[in-house]
Amino acid sequence: MTQLKPAGPVAPSAAAAVRLRPLGLGGVRVTGGLAGEWQRRTRDVTVPRAVELIVSTGTLRNLEIAAGEAEGVFRGMHFADSDVTKVLEAVAWQLAAHGPDAALEETAVRWAGVLERAQRPDGYLNSWIQVAAPDRRYADLVSSHELYCYGHLIQAGVALDRATGNDRLLAVARRAADHVVAEFRRGGRAGLDGHPEIETALVELYRHTGERSYLDQAAQFVERRGHGFAGESDRGSVYLVDHEPARTATTLNGHAVRALYLEAGVVDVAAETGDTELLAASIRRWDDTVAHKTALTGGHGSRHLFEAFGDRDELPPDQSYNETCAAVASIHWSWRLLLATGESRFADLVERTLYNTVAASTNVHGDRFFYVNALQRRPDATPPPKGGRRRPWFRCACCPPNVARLIGSLGHYAATTSDDGVQLQLFLPAEIETNDGVRLTVATAYPDDGRIRVTVDQTPTRPWRLELRLPAWSAPDHTALSVAGAPADVRPDERGYLVVDRLWRPGDTVELDLDVAPRLTYPHHRLDALRGTIAVERGPLVYCFEQIDQPAGVTLDDLAPTGDDTPTTRRESSPGLPGPVTFVDLAADVLAARPRTGLPYGAAPATDPAVRARVVARAVPYHLWDNRDGGAMRVWLPRSPRHGAASATVIEP
Amino acid sequence: MTQLKPAGPVAPSAAAAVRLRPLGLGGVRVTGGLAGEWQRRTRDVTVPRAVELIVSTGTLRNLEIAAGEAEGVFRGMHFADSDVTKVLEAVAWQLAAHGPDAALEETAVRWAGVLERAQRPDGYLNSWIQVAAPDRRYADLVSSHELYCYGHLIQAGVALDRATGNDRLLAVARRAADHVVAEFRRGGRAGLDGHPEIETALVELYRHTGERSYLDQAAQFVERRGHGFAGESDRGSVYLVDHEPARTATTLNGHAVRALYLEAGVVDVAAETGDTELLAASIRRWDDTVAHKTALTGGHGSRHLFEAFGDRDELPPDQSYNETCAAVASIHWSWRLLLATGESRFADLVERTLYNTVAASTNVHGDRFFYVNALQRRPDATPPPKGGRRRPWFRCACCPPNVARLIGSLGHYAATTSDDGVQLQLFLPAEIETNDGVRLTVATAYPDDGRIRVTVDQTPTRPWRLELRLPAWSAPDHTALSVAGAPADVRPDERGYLVVDRLWRPGDTVELDLDVAPRLTYPHHRLDALRGTIAVERGPLVYCFEQIDQPAGVTLDDLAPTGDDTPTTRRESSPGLPGPVTFVDLAADVLAARPRTGLPYGAAPATDPAVRARVVARAVPYHLWDNRDGGAMRVWLPRSPRHGAASATVIEP
Repeated sequence: MTQLKPAGPVAPSAAAAVRLRPLGLGGVRVTGGLAGEWQRRTRDVTVPRAVELIVSTGTLRNLEIAAGEAEGVFRGMHFADSDVTKVLEAVAWQLAAHGPDAALEETAVRWAGVLERAQRPDGYLNSWIQVAAPDRRYADLVSSHELYCYGHLIQAGVALDRATGNDRLLAVARRAADHVVAEFRRGGRAGLDGHPEIETALVELYRHTGERSYLDQAAQFVERRGHGFAGESDRGSVYLVDHEPARTATTLNGHAVRALYLEAGVVDVAAETGDTELLAASIRRWDDTVAHKTALTGGHGSRHLFEAFGDRDELPPDQSYNETCAAVASIHWSWRLLLATGESRFADLVERTLYNTVAASTNVHGDRFFYVNALQRRPDATPPPKGGRRRPWFRCACCPPNVARLIGSLGHYAATTSDDGVQLQLFLPAEIETNDGVRLTVATAYPDDGRIRVTVDQTPTRPWRLELRLPAWSAPDHTALSVAGAPADVRPDERGYLVVDRLWRPGDTVELDLDVAPRLTYPHHRLDALRGTIAVERGPLVYCFEQIDQPAGVTLDDLAPTGDDTPTTRRESSPGLPGPVTFVDLAADVLAARPRTGLPYGAAPATDPAVRARVVARAVPYHLWDNRDGGAMRVWLPRSPRHGAASATVIEP
Repeated sequence: MTQLKPAGPVAPSAAAAVRLRPLGLGGVRVTGGLAGEWQRRTRDVTVPRAVELIVSTGTLRNLEIAAGEAEGVFRGMHFADSDVTKVLEAVAWQLAAHGPDAALEETAVRWAGVLERAQRPDGYLNSWIQVAAPDRRYADLVSSHELYCYGHLIQAGVALDRATGNDRLLAVARRAADHVVAEFRRGGRAGLDGHPEIETALVELYRHTGERSYLDQAAQFVERRGHGFAGESDRGSVYLVDHEPARTATTLNGHAVRALYLEAGVVDVAAETGDTELLAASIRRWDDTVAHKTALTGGHGSRHLFEAFGDRDELPPDQSYNETCAAVASIHWSWRLLLATGESRFADLVERTLYNTVAASTNVHGDRFFYVNALQRRPDATPPPKGGRRRPWFRCACCPPNVARLIGSLGHYAATTSDDGVQLQLFLPAEIETNDGVRLTVATAYPDDGRIRVTVDQTPTRPWRLELRLPAWSAPDHTALSVAGAPADVRPDERGYLVVDRLWRPGDTVELDLDVAPRLTYPHHRLDALRGTIAVERGPLVYCFEQIDQPAGVTLDDLAPTGDDTPTTRRESSPGLPGPVTFVDLAADVLAARPRTGLPYGAAPATDPAVRARVVARAVPYHLWDNRDGGAMRVWLPRSPRHGAASATVIEP
């Protein structure tokens, strides 16, 4: 189907090697539900606060100083310019999602003007270098983030042009990109930014402008990676994701956000150049990373130290990092792989990451944020500096604007089109409109409820295919599908979709009923940090246990679900949480710890717990945690010893 | 008993509130065994290399520049001076343990001369400040380590005087200490070093010189802690161990080495001032730290990030830090608590830490060192910068000299005296001599063998008491004691010692037979990172499983001991390990992992392992690991699902 409406964040070129294409802007209007609430609070609270903080923290002022319009010294992180442009990108998608807003438009115009005037005549733009270290231009690429900042500038410029038709920032971005190409193209500077991000941005700029040199430059940056061009860091080349070339690396290592941003660029380059080898390498890393380095919540990055991926199967619930930006970057990567391959597993991870890590990153009011998204908080914890409770903002303010730009463009991720028809990827309550005359209404209370009703409001007069993603957690025999009132087979195709081919008439409905009964989830036995534990999920939602919901007098750490009762749901209100919430109740034993003196190691009888009572443990959706108090939380609870460990299958030779 | 021989590292004053006193220098001569081998390799390899590296890395040169005897710029860490003085302290104990050595003595004299000439007329001495930042004297105490460096200077000065009678460095140390007192005493500078260490050093200097102002200054530094005097760090006041006063803090938090050095000073101050409240607070923290924050190997510090203690029960085997210096500092702390209280549990931890973390920190040749002492290394690990395999040296070279100064003075920790008699604390093969006429020979192959034979070579003609520590792991009913050939009761007193009161005759023997049969050890159920695992210990030795010792074709991570067979020992040679080694063999199932695609989480049947074979898993003493290859290692192995989890005791109401 042809692309007529202005594009959203990702718009593969007509020649791109992709199976699916996103809808244009306005192609999906979110009409309510949880996603609608996220968009509301982002519009009403997060973005206005972000705009205010960019000014009040002096972040915009750095650029004003660089433009010669203000006096003072540089304030904040080296890469503070990217906070400005990420908020601008968020503003752009905000305007796209909600329509005109005079204050936001005024901000966009004003900030774009500052960036424009701060830009040097040769296209160079970086307020840190211009204000604080004018003789260090490109001298410290290992840490300066100069190209990283261009990446966000480019993304903001493209977004503003697509969302509002105002191409003033785009022009700034193009001048910067032209400058980068002139400096870094083959035969020029051999450097590479220590922090990937410009790669995916340059490809999108190519898509938006048709200027091939941007794609070539992105491809060159991708190819340079892994050959030491990023320079020397005492954190090692792995921190810079410069330890192995993108064609040969088999897993993600090092700084999670860097590695994930790079992968988005790798897939973009592969799609636009038709490089199947490069695509296959990225898929191989995705498979390995999902199987060995991904938290139940979709979080990435097992280590606080250097914000890094851990070893295979190193997935601690307590000290995992799971940076909010990594979740956004992971969605960028998986989304691009979904477009390239049309396989639902990539959308499954987008959804898991969205409904858990991204959703939990912001409090219910939209004004406090997690940088780190742990799966466990101990009582009386002494969290590392970026851990602990949500905070109003960060000196390194990368995360909140990242979430805002994602949530503003959420509709972009809800559906795709192919030559055959339309694919529903996320089940947001929405109005969907393609460029060639399909209009659908999706009505659902998903993810709280599993029923999704799609109504065809308008249709071409030729047959087309509606594909509905069947999430991996909804077993076909617990899923129902009806088309125009008649039950249909629930048999996903080889890419994971339920396919309905039909000559549609306006008013036709398709009803999908996914299995959102609570389910117990167990970790693979190789996950040392989770051995012997159990978690609760429901649809795409990971649940967690907060101390505040447990029976009086029962310490969270002593709760041990039996694992053999069917958990039940209970819809209830709780002060601090918006509206009634679907809690999950399940039977749990209370462990009576032996008195603790001396080392916590000994012969079995000294260390085994006694089971002293059976109670009901209560779980709340993970994304709602830390909204009521700062108490203890666990996603994974130990399995009661009354029910033994995993039931071993013994295969004797 | 009176103190006549020159003192070792810790010499409580006559008035100190201590139950036990260390023997003087030469009071214990280690005659062989594992400890003897450690001393040999320290003397022959580690100390000479350290001396060479202090010169070749430019560390000594910093002081020569400060003394005006060389040209150049400062090299290395701010606190590089402490490397010089720690090696000097190691040299001192080396000379004490092994007698005169012209080369070492020449080094000591030469380096002491450099320190002497680098010292400013007012007593100030810090080559970093003097060479690189002359206007920053005491301006950055939060990070400068100026007082920390004095601490090591003082300890070296005291050690050299005690060991060799050469008081030249002691004079430098006294001038520095007098300067510190003049600067920081009540009414003077309000600062506090970000890194404790000077506290314990000043108390020892008081003990050595009788100068009360040193004790007062140490007490003042201890009291200032927790009130913000250390300044501001973006790592938080907990990193500086300045978050809570020593009188009220209930557990150790923050940077492990800082916290532990401070505790040594706290106990020293408490002992010399008779401050029972301060002592009780330190014991409370010791009990909490042992119960909740100590690795099986005695290691301290669960986090790489900021080298910090974790939360209670946060004890990951893979990403734990367990810094070598923390182990040395922990021994300093526990030893002082042992002297203060006479309770064997403190010596138990000294022994555990010594035979595991400290012993493992150095390779069998004495020329490679661990900074971080993990309890697990995964295959294909991407270790954080200070993790991974042992290295020849470190830019931050704190650890190897710390081990060298401990091993050189190891005899100091083997036995104590009280008004009643002699206590055997560590069972080193040794000749022991007290100041009042007791001479003993300890013959043993401990810890490889549990039999310890003590012969009384010389004795006063009045009765005295021989006390033998009964380690907590040796159950009385599996322990044998005989006195002069006659079986004796194995009933420890309330402090944990087997007591033999007797009018001794020369030639009398006492034989203690401790239970060093291999034993299976389980973690307390609250230790999330170790749930469902099992370890092997034998006497004071923690064992570990290295991939190289397992049956061909069996991956370490698939080994799951059944936990219900009696492990056996096998004495065998293995290329790369010195002499025959006592391995422990135990039955283990091999787990057959389900194929891994998608996330490593699912319903029980998808995640439970199958048991495919029974094999023999082989364990080697932890302190010998990483001497053969860089392969995978685990202290804790998952317990086979064939045998269920911990056997639950069910207490129904």
